[in-house]
Amino acid sequence: MSFELTKSLLERLQDDVEEGRDSDILSVVSELHPADIGGVLDRLSPDEARYVLRLLEPETAAEAILELDEDVREKLLEGLTSQEIAEKVIENIESDDAALVMSELPEDKAKEVLDLLEDAEQADDIEELLGYEDGTAGAIMGKELVKVRSDWTVARAILEMRRQAEEVDQVYTVYVVDKDERLLGILPLKQLLFSAESTRTLIKHICDEDVVSVKVDDDAEDVVSTMKKYDVVVLPVVTEDGRLTGRITFDDVMDVMEEEAEKDYQMASGISGSVDSDDKVLRLTRARLPWLLIGLVGGILVANVISLYEEQLRIDPKLAFFIPLIAAMGGNVGVQSSAIIVQGLANRTIATGGIVARLMKELSVALLNALVCGALILVYNLTIGSAQPLSFTVSIALFTVIIFAALFGTLTPLLLDRVKVDPALATGPFITTLNDIFGLIVYFVVGRLLYGMPW
Amino acid sequence: MSFELTKSLLERLQDDVEEGRDSDILSVVSELHPADIGGVLDRLSPDEARYVLRLLEPETAAEAILELDEDVREKLLEGLTSQEIAEKVIENIESDDAALVMSELPEDKAKEVLDLLEDAEQADDIEELLGYEDGTAGAIMGKELVKVRSDWTVARAILEMRRQAEEVDQVYTVYVVDKDERLLGILPLKQLLFSAESTRTLIKHICDEDVVSVKVDDDAEDVVSTMKKYDVVVLPVVTEDGRLTGRITFDDVMDVMEEEAEKDYQMASGISGSVDSDDKVLRLTRARLPWLLIGLVGGILVANVISLYEEQLRIDPKLAFFIPLIAAMGGNVGVQSSAIIVQGLANRTIATGGIVARLMKELSVALLNALVCGALILVYNLTIGSAQPLSFTVSIALFTVIIFAALFGTLTPLLLDRVKVDPALATGPFITTLNDIFGLIVYFVVGRLLYGMPW
Repeated sequence: MSFELTKSLLERLQDDVEEGRDSDILSVVSELHPADIGGVLDRLSPDEARYVLRLLEPETAAEAILELDEDVREKLLEGLTSQEIAEKVIENIESDDAALVMSELPEDKAKEVLDLLEDAEQADDIEELLGYEDGTAGAIMGKELVKVRSDWTVARAILEMRRQAEEVDQVYTVYVVDKDERLLGILPLKQLLFSAESTRTLIKHICDEDVVSVKVDDDAEDVVSTMKKYDVVVLPVVTEDGRLTGRITFDDVMDVMEEEAEKDYQMASGISGSVDSDDKVLRLTRARLPWLLIGLVGGILVANVISLYEEQLRIDPKLAFFIPLIAAMGGNVGVQSSAIIVQGLANRTIATGGIVARLMKELSVALLNALVCGALILVYNLTIGSAQPLSFTVSIALFTVIIFAALFGTLTPLLLDRVKVDPALATGPFITTLNDIFGLIVYFVVGRLLYGMPW
Repeated sequence: MSFELTKSLLERLQDDVEEGRDSDILSVVSELHPADIGGVLDRLSPDEARYVLRLLEPETAAEAILELDEDVREKLLEGLTSQEIAEKVIENIESDDAALVMSELPEDKAKEVLDLLEDAEQADDIEELLGYEDGTAGAIMGKELVKVRSDWTVARAILEMRRQAEEVDQVYTVYVVDKDERLLGILPLKQLLFSAESTRTLIKHICDEDVVSVKVDDDAEDVVSTMKKYDVVVLPVVTEDGRLTGRITFDDVMDVMEEEAEKDYQMASGISGSVDSDDKVLRLTRARLPWLLIGLVGGILVANVISLYEEQLRIDPKLAFFIPLIAAMGGNVGVQSSAIIVQGLANRTIATGGIVARLMKELSVALLNALVCGALILVYNLTIGSAQPLSFTVSIALFTVIIFAALFGTLTPLLLDRVKVDPALATGPFITTLNDIFGLIVYFVVGRLLYGMPW
C-alpha cells in the first residue's frame, strides 16, 4: 500500500529519463498514487521532473504537483509555459488548490494563465479566492460543491446533482439553498441512497436544517475549532448575507492545524516566520537572527543590571556562581507558565474572564515549586559548606524569582491576548530576558541585605 | 449557527434545574447541537448536569457527554449507575467513543457496563478496541463500517448496505471485501448514486482497487501522515493478514494531531505529561517540577564550573556581568536549532541520511549569526569603554558558543531519534544546561588567555 522510494529505483528512473525510455518510466510511475509520484518528483531535478510530468495523464500530473514542497513546485513551474500550466495543471485541480498554485506564480505569469483558462467560471472562481485575505475562511475554501434548491423535487435534484457531481472530485455533502442561494440545510446522502423517497417529494421536506456554517471573513482558526467541535468533514462557507459561496474540507483544516502548531512551536523556540529544515541558509538566518538580537540586547541590559552590583561581587565573587542558576530558573518557570496559558488560549479551554482565578492557581503551583527548589538549594549550599549569607541569598532569591516568573508568565500572554497580539510572543526570549533582569535584581538586593550592606 | 452561552442564560438554567422546570430547560437545550449542550454541561455542577442529561433523548445526551472534558465527564459518570451508562451512553455512541468512555471508568464498573450491554456484538467490539495498545491505529479506530462482498450484485449490495447503514452514523465510504473479509477496494458512492449501473453488475467490476489502508499495529502518527498524504476522510484498518477490521475517521486523526502538537509544544516549554490550564494544582506541579529540578541540578553544575574560575572573578569582577548573556545566547541558539530538527523529524521533511549535510547547513546559519552577534557586542563594549581583554573575551566566547550550541542542538535530536528516544526531549532544559556549561567554560578559558593568565 505505502510506497518507499529506494535509492536504486531513483537512479534507475534518472537513467530512464536521460535515455528517454518513456515506457520504462511509465511502468514505474503510473502504478503510483499521485501523492507518491509527488514524493518521487521531489527527489528529481526540475528538468527530470518536468520530463516525467509531461508523460503523465494531466489529472495525475496536476495532483502530483500539488504534493510537492512549495519551493520545489515553484522551480518546476518556472520551466513550464503559461499554456502548459493552464491546461495541464490548473484546469485539472480544484479551485482552492488552483488559487494556491496561482498565488505562487509571478504576477504577470499568473495573469497570463488566468486568461488562458478555457472555463470562464473557473477563472472567476480562482480570482475570487485570490481576493480573500490570508488566514480567513475565504482564503482556504474551495468553490466546488453540489447544491440543490429546496423547491425542487427529488427527481430533479438527482438529475442536477448528477450534472454537478461531474465537476466535483468527492461528494460528501449536498447543500440545500433557496432561490437566492441562501443556505438552508443539507440533504442527507444516506437517506437519498438507502431509503426509497418518492421522486416527487420536495427537497425541503427531506432537508436537514441542522447545518453548521462559517462566514467568508471568519478566521481560519475559528474554522478549525468549528470543524473540530461539530465533527463535520466539510464546512459550508456563506457570505455576510447567508448565500452559500464555498466549502472547506477536512484536509484544508488539517493543513491549517499543522501550520498553527508549527507557528506556536517555532515562536516558543525563538524562530520567526514559517521555516523548515529544508529552507535555504539565508532564509533560516533571517528567521532566527532577530530573536538572537533580542536576546543580545537583553543580555546587555542584564550586564548593566549586574554592573550596578560590582562592589558586591568584589566583596564576594562567589555570588557570581549562582547568577546562571537564578537567571535560568526564572526563564524556565516563565516559559512553563506562559506555555500553559498560550495553549489554553489556543484550545479555548480558558474560559472568558477569570484572570484572577487563573493567577491564584498559578500562584499555588509556583509556591509549591518555589518551596521545593528553594529548600533543596539551601540544603545543597549548607551541605557543601557555603557561607550562610550566600546560602540564604540564593534560596530567598530563587524562591522570589519562581513566584514572580510564574505570575509574570501567566499575566503577559493573557494581556497580549486582550490587546489582540499573538500571546505566543510571550513565550520567546522576551519573557526570559525580563525574568533574568528581575531575578538578578532580587538576587543582588537580597545579597546586599544579608551581607549587611546598605541597598 | 454558533451558540454563545451567556452568564444570564446559565443562571436561568441553573434556576430551572433547582426548581425542576423541565419544560423550560428543554426549551433552551433541545434546540442546541450536542456539542453546544456539552459546552453548557461543562459549566454546570455534576448534579445539575445529570439532571439536564436525564431529560434529553439518549442519543443527544450521549453525544453531549462525549463533548465534555475528560475530568468533567468522569465526575458526571460517577453519579450514574452502570445500567444508565450502558443504556443511555454506551449503546448510543460509536465503538471508538464507547471504548474511550469505558477506559475512563473504574475497572469493575466498566466490566459491569460491558455485561449490561444488550448488543453482544457491540460488547465484543468495545472489548477488542480496549485491547489495543495506546498510540496504535487499533486504539483510535472504530468498528462501524459498511462493507460489501466483491461477488455480490449491485442489487444485493444495496440491500445489504441499507441494512448496515442503519447502525452507522455517517457513511463516507463503502468497502469491498472478499469472502475471507480481506480488503479489496472501495465502492465509489458517487458512481452508485449518480450513474445507473445495472443492478445485476457484480461489485468486483465497479470496485475501485486504489485504496490506501493502515494496519492495526501501525503507529497513530503514521496514520496521521497517511491521511494527510492521501487526503482521505476515512482510512480502513486491516489486520496483519489483510482482513478489514475497522476504520479511522478524520476527527480521530484531528485529535491525534492536536495531542502530538501539544506534547511537542509542552516538551519544548519544559512541561511533562499532557496537562492543560484547567488541571488541578498538584497535577500541574507534578508536570512542571521535574523539569525545574533538572534545571536546578544544571544550575548547580554551572555554579561548580564557575567556581573553578573564582580567582579570575576576583581579578576582574566585570567578567560576571556577561555570564547571563553567554549562557542565554547558548540556550537560545541550541533551542532554535533543535526545534527545527524536531519539527523536521515530526513532518518527515528531513530525508533519511544526510546528517553531515544537515550539520554543514546549520554551521553556515550559525556562522552568520555568530559573526553578527559577536561583532555587535564587540562594538558595544568598545563604545562604552570596556577594557580590551574583557571586550574580546565576550565576543570570542559568544562566537564560539553560538557555533557550538547550533551543532549540539542539531546533533542531539538527530541522535535521540536514531536511538528511538523522542527527539523533542532535546529541546527542554537539557540542552540549555549543557550549552550553559560549555559556554561558560569557553568564556572563562578565553578570559584567562586574554588576561594573560595560565589556563
